[in-house]
Amino acid sequence: MDLRIGLVSISDRASGGIYEDKGIPALKAWLGNALATPWKSIERLIPDERELISGTLVELVDIEGCSLVLTTGGTGPAPRDVTPEATIDVADKVMDGFGEQMRSISLKYVPTAILSRQVGVVRKHALILNLPGQPKAIGETLDGIFPAIPYCIDLVGGARIETRPEVISSFRPKKK
Amino acid sequence: MDLRIGLVSISDRASGGIYEDKGIPALKAWLGNALATPWKSIERLIPDERELISGTLVELVDIEGCSLVLTTGGTGPAPRDVTPEATIDVADKVMDGFGEQMRSISLKYVPTAILSRQVGVVRKHALILNLPGQPKAIGETLDGIFPAIPYCIDLVGGARIETRPEVISSFRPKKK
Amino acid sequence: MDLRIGLVSISDRASGGIYEDKGIPALKAWLGNALATPWKSIERLIPDERELISGTLVELVDIEGCSLVLTTGGTGPAPRDVTPEATIDVADKVMDGFGEQMRSISLKYVPTAILSRQVGVVRKHALILNLPGQPKAIGETLDGIFPAIPYCIDLVGGARIETRPEVISSFRPKKK
Repeated sequence: MDLRIGLVSISDRASGGIYEDKGIPALKAWLGNALATPWKSIERLIPDERELISGTLVELVDIEGCSLVLTTGGTGPAPRDVTPEATIDVADKVMDGFGEQMRSISLKYVPTAILSRQVGVVRKHALILNLPGQPKAIGETLDGIFPAIPYCIDLVGGARIETRPEVISSFRPKKK
Repeated sequence: MDLRIGLVSISDRASGGIYEDKGIPALKAWLGNALATPWKSIERLIPDERELISGTLVELVDIEGCSLVLTTGGTGPAPRDVTPEATIDVADKVMDGFGEQMRSISLKYVPTAILSRQVGVVRKHALILNLPGQPKAIGETLDGIFPAIPYCIDLVGGARIETRPEVISSFRPKKK
Repeated sequence: MDLRIGLVSISDRASGGIYEDKGIPALKAWLGNALATPWKSIERLIPDERELISGTLVELVDIEGCSLVLTTGGTGPAPRDVTPEATIDVADKVMDGFGEQMRSISLKYVPTAILSRQVGVVRKHALILNLPGQPKAIGETLDGIFPAIPYCIDLVGGARIETRPEVISSFRPKKK
């Protein structure tokens, strides 16, 4: 099973060409450095529209066969921030621990981390995670949560992910 | 845009005159000390009735134009504790980070902090937060979360809040 | 009011006789060591079936009169893990602080703790808590959260629980 990873940047301004998207490049740089397993990215740059976001997530999991989908942007309190709602719309299970832990990590850097509504959910054989919008915060967050991601994807039947241990360790509990 | 802040004490006993309300005085004392922006309080003392609470929150935001509404009381596990339910009833967005962080702060003081179900939500141009019932816990909680509040209210289009930096700092990330 | 505690081990394999259940023995050992109040356990070993789990929880609270029900197993991201859903199905109130705190405790031991979806809920006069599946993790979790449990059960009208202070302290705030 090939490892395919969906990267979705959600921003009215970046998708409208008003400024350059920095989210997908940051995600690709982090993953390119951390993953030992060969992987292919499937990329989307879309505006903050709830149905478009949820439709894109469904396409990436159900049609494109991604085992992991990372979004960036759209998780704040503003009216146009609807990434978490769109992600929960397509969830089989909401994984509260990811949201809690992502906020806890970011809180070490900025007190406004508690304003993020980012969530992690399982859909079919895939894990979908909302990451922050800022490249620096993307890296900080992935450093903190990635150790738990490969095992989560094992448990839902997605592709096996190995990391480069000198960059990031992945943790799989010993079988009972 | 004037800064108006709703203060809602929710307690069967205090609203029934069985004991004196200490929630609103504690909220006013903390805010009076911390805020640099001139502000006006709109105060309500009501019993633990879900529809009355949610109706009061709607009135304070939609009619009275409050940018921030702070409730005190009614967040525990007992049958009459319905403040979180009433708050979620009128939410546009639930901000999970506030509940997590408020419990995390109180947990430094008492192990029963995990029994609090307090939430933070956005409604229109306002942030609504459930605070603990005890005056001491009100202050501890506001000390911990207030740095993120002015920026949150900026993002939803409420009034600008400046704090006295010698009392409490407020944090606004630099514009991208 | 007698103290009755429901112990529910949820596992397709253990309930099918494929391997020996280690969850209920671990729960009984921990409680036997920690509780000063005399108590009686009501035990169930059932497969990962959502309606069977929720039906069992209702029976233990409504018919058997348990003030505390502890489940073990079925809280991960896999398709057959449905314990949290079944628990929320029968909840009067979801107590988010328990899930947050249980993950926070386990995170000190394994990074995959964030994959647990365990919840705590109130139903009538009882507290229902999802614990991890592994005996070692059961003990670590109960050590961390039990101090808040007796007071929670007081607040919902269940039986009074006293602990052995040399093993685990229970915390009851002083009356206002």
